[in-house]
Amino acid sequence: MLAELVALNRWDEAGLAAQLTHQLRELIASGRIKRGAVLPSSRHLAVELDVSRNTVTHAYEQLAAEGYLRVAARRRPVVIDDIEERLAGATPVPRREATRKPQLAPWALRLEDVGWPMSYQAEFRPLRAGLADAREFPHEIWARCLRRSALRRRFNDQTLVNRPSLRQALCDYLETGRGVRAEANQILILPTAQAALTLVTATTITPGDTVWTEDPGYPGAAAAFRAAGAKVVGIRLDQWGMTRARQTRAPKLIFATPSHQHPTGRVMPVARRTELLAAAEPGKTWIVEDDYDGEFHYDSRPMPALQGLDREGRVLYVGTFAKAMTADIRIGYLVVPPSLARTMEVAQRHLGLIASVHVQEALSDFMSDGHFLAHVRRVRRIYRARRDHLATLLERHLGKVLDAEVPHGGMQLIARFRNGGADREVVDRLVAAGVEVRALSSLAVERPRDSGLLLGFAAWRESEISRAVRIMADCLAGKRAQVLGRAV
Amino acid sequence: MLAELVALNRWDEAGLAAQLTHQLRELIASGRIKRGAVLPSSRHLAVELDVSRNTVTHAYEQLAAEGYLRVAARRRPVVIDDIEERLAGATPVPRREATRKPQLAPWALRLEDVGWPMSYQAEFRPLRAGLADAREFPHEIWARCLRRSALRRRFNDQTLVNRPSLRQALCDYLETGRGVRAEANQILILPTAQAALTLVTATTITPGDTVWTEDPGYPGAAAAFRAAGAKVVGIRLDQWGMTRARQTRAPKLIFATPSHQHPTGRVMPVARRTELLAAAEPGKTWIVEDDYDGEFHYDSRPMPALQGLDREGRVLYVGTFAKAMTADIRIGYLVVPPSLARTMEVAQRHLGLIASVHVQEALSDFMSDGHFLAHVRRVRRIYRARRDHLATLLERHLGKVLDAEVPHGGMQLIARFRNGGADREVVDRLVAAGVEVRALSSLAVERPRDSGLLLGFAAWRESEISRAVRIMADCLAGKRAQVLGRAV
Repeated sequence: MLAELVALNRWDEAGLAAQLTHQLRELIASGRIKRGAVLPSSRHLAVELDVSRNTVTHAYEQLAAEGYLRVAARRRPVVIDDIEERLAGATPVPRREATRKPQLAPWALRLEDVGWPMSYQAEFRPLRAGLADAREFPHEIWARCLRRSALRRRFNDQTLVNRPSLRQALCDYLETGRGVRAEANQILILPTAQAALTLVTATTITPGDTVWTEDPGYPGAAAAFRAAGAKVVGIRLDQWGMTRARQTRAPKLIFATPSHQHPTGRVMPVARRTELLAAAEPGKTWIVEDDYDGEFHYDSRPMPALQGLDREGRVLYVGTFAKAMTADIRIGYLVVPPSLARTMEVAQRHLGLIASVHVQEALSDFMSDGHFLAHVRRVRRIYRARRDHLATLLERHLGKVLDAEVPHGGMQLIARFRNGGADREVVDRLVAAGVEVRALSSLAVERPRDSGLLLGFAAWRESEISRAVRIMADCLAGKRAQVLGRAV
Repeated sequence: MLAELVALNRWDEAGLAAQLTHQLRELIASGRIKRGAVLPSSRHLAVELDVSRNTVTHAYEQLAAEGYLRVAARRRPVVIDDIEERLAGATPVPRREATRKPQLAPWALRLEDVGWPMSYQAEFRPLRAGLADAREFPHEIWARCLRRSALRRRFNDQTLVNRPSLRQALCDYLETGRGVRAEANQILILPTAQAALTLVTATTITPGDTVWTEDPGYPGAAAAFRAAGAKVVGIRLDQWGMTRARQTRAPKLIFATPSHQHPTGRVMPVARRTELLAAAEPGKTWIVEDDYDGEFHYDSRPMPALQGLDREGRVLYVGTFAKAMTADIRIGYLVVPPSLARTMEVAQRHLGLIASVHVQEALSDFMSDGHFLAHVRRVRRIYRARRDHLATLLERHLGKVLDAEVPHGGMQLIARFRNGGADREVVDRLVAAGVEVRALSSLAVERPRDSGLLLGFAAWRESEISRAVRIMADCLAGKRAQVLGRAV
């Protein structure tokens, strides 16, 4: 008797028809009701189960719509033939992994070799680099902007993927604050700065192309170009940043961080910038300028962007709000030459690299109302003091072991071992002791030429920096002894 | 005299040092101060300009940092040699387009052929398809969720790109509401559903691979696969959706919309679903299930997802909040098999496909507090009534010209011409008359086999639908006359 296989619960939120449908589906799928079986009429089953006939009819119709039953007027429903084999997967059996999993594309397989993004422990600790201090962010003001933006009713104008108000606010800021020359329609608003690199890579790189990047440099850029099949050539640095490459042939793309070279923080002077532009072959070379923390220049006014020097429309300028505001905001942007504006926006929509409209409009308010500049000015002072604090403590407590290169701007600094030696083992010991640092050698694009520590100061309070340096001093006393011991 | 070339404004917000730096930079860049020129001492220039010596020193140091000047203690600053040629781009000359623009990659060039995304006029008009009605969205509740999320201070834990709370809320909803079986860590939160296709394409498609899609089908999917260099084969539909392909070799990937086939709205019954799973060759074929509007089923409960029938871990399930909530929210998601969870998250971070943390947490609150299901239930009733209204009016006013296929769910319907004929010209006339419709033939993946109109009903009020149908009736009376005239 079918009715005996069904147990309905009148207090269950799901409702009787839903319960009956679910249970019948499971009975068919599991084979307890056989293929070809003729089920009771709805009237009959309703009486057996003491439910309304509508309840049963509803369940039968649903299962017919799903393809389990064949129903016809004045006929009892029939379980569809050979449903049993076809439904192998529908029973709630424990899931097992495929024995023969489909292959991934070469791009995905290359990700393993590329080794980026790196994984972190869940916990954030001093002196992790590359971060803004979210504790200094004006959350109340931002919450107000978000709320106001969400209440502004827009009527289905969502194909405007780059909100005009934010484009204009960014345009004004980039011109006065960063020396970027662009019209609003050259600015693409993206979920992250890394998405800007995705867009640039997709539109410019063909497998086999050559790309120059600074070495050491930002690993996320090298990873994006490598995964796309480009040959990435690491170009050495001198005190002014990226040097003139000794390569005879111009590359397809040059990636540079002229405001504050990542990771050294060196500022590229204007003469070197014009050399860089000259190294880009007309008709061949794109230049990507990543101005990830150009807001934070401490000892003089920031240099105008390389983009502003470019007359040929070959510079693609990447920026982000993750450093100047907080990483949670997740908005990056890309400024493209006028000739690429249309193509790039099509590519952006094609790839679905679109940021929340609510966040875009909140950000445009945050900028227009002056909160953005006020915040940047405020944390610039705080970060500068933190840089000075870290530099002073390193000199005082670790001056004999470490040689810190104090940058004019940015959010991190590098410190080299005066006595040389490998950095990875030291980093492991520091991390184990509770200080999060990165090995300079891990930022090498080709073979590591340089060894040392990358230390973030922007996200960490002076008390946190003090504590971290104390731990480092304890650890590196051991390191110093070891290095000396080895030398003997 | 240098001082005569400079005009400082003591009321200018920029400050005297900033003004002086700017003006000197322009004078050097434009060549009015020659290369090799020796500038006045800071003391001397300060007297000439009637400013403090610090102001001049500051300007000189800034320009030295930028590479325009060479400064040394007790020496007058010198404009760096050959700066003039190098700086060609730094003068504020009118921007001109590059005569020789660098080439784009084949991917970007293919976008032109792919013809997607299509461009719309700026204005949204009835009966544009594929949209939710943003006017019905509970903006106040959403604004509250966003505000609360922004006020929740997080301390730099931003590497969690997929917020655990949203993953869990989605996991629960997808299991009970859509029959998707997954753990929270199999769910990737992305900026858009199209970004999910970007991720899938990047990780699975090698140029030359074969992909099957429904024909007619969702153009954004075919476009993504084609741009990646795949051979896209359009598979015909019957009343149950995608048919068994007559292809002898299994493809690399099958893209399907089983809940409501796009654009016909047909529901794929369970037997066809198991056939589809069986068509995927073990060790070779991925299946992408795009459940873009699975929430909106009107005549019976929604069918459980194909993903829930898959025991082999080959189905990648794509969803979005753009339809169930509002397109402004910009959150899509991808459910991947357990074996792919780690690789896909690395790929997601690599591509920078990360949604705003504030929006993710607001959404998790919106779901946990029951607002999501309440909203879906509410608009489901509204959209059903709109579907019925459109279907009734089409039958009443255009029944002799159009044959509407009324779907069991979704947000749009198709209507074919009873007398045949091309659709594009009719669409042009309707758009000109103020009704936004799409040609069914424009959704063909291969050669158009079918002609008709795609009409959206979800986003439009009954009064708007009535007005649109009236306009259509006026237009299509002409069409009917014309077709008859041609037949004569």
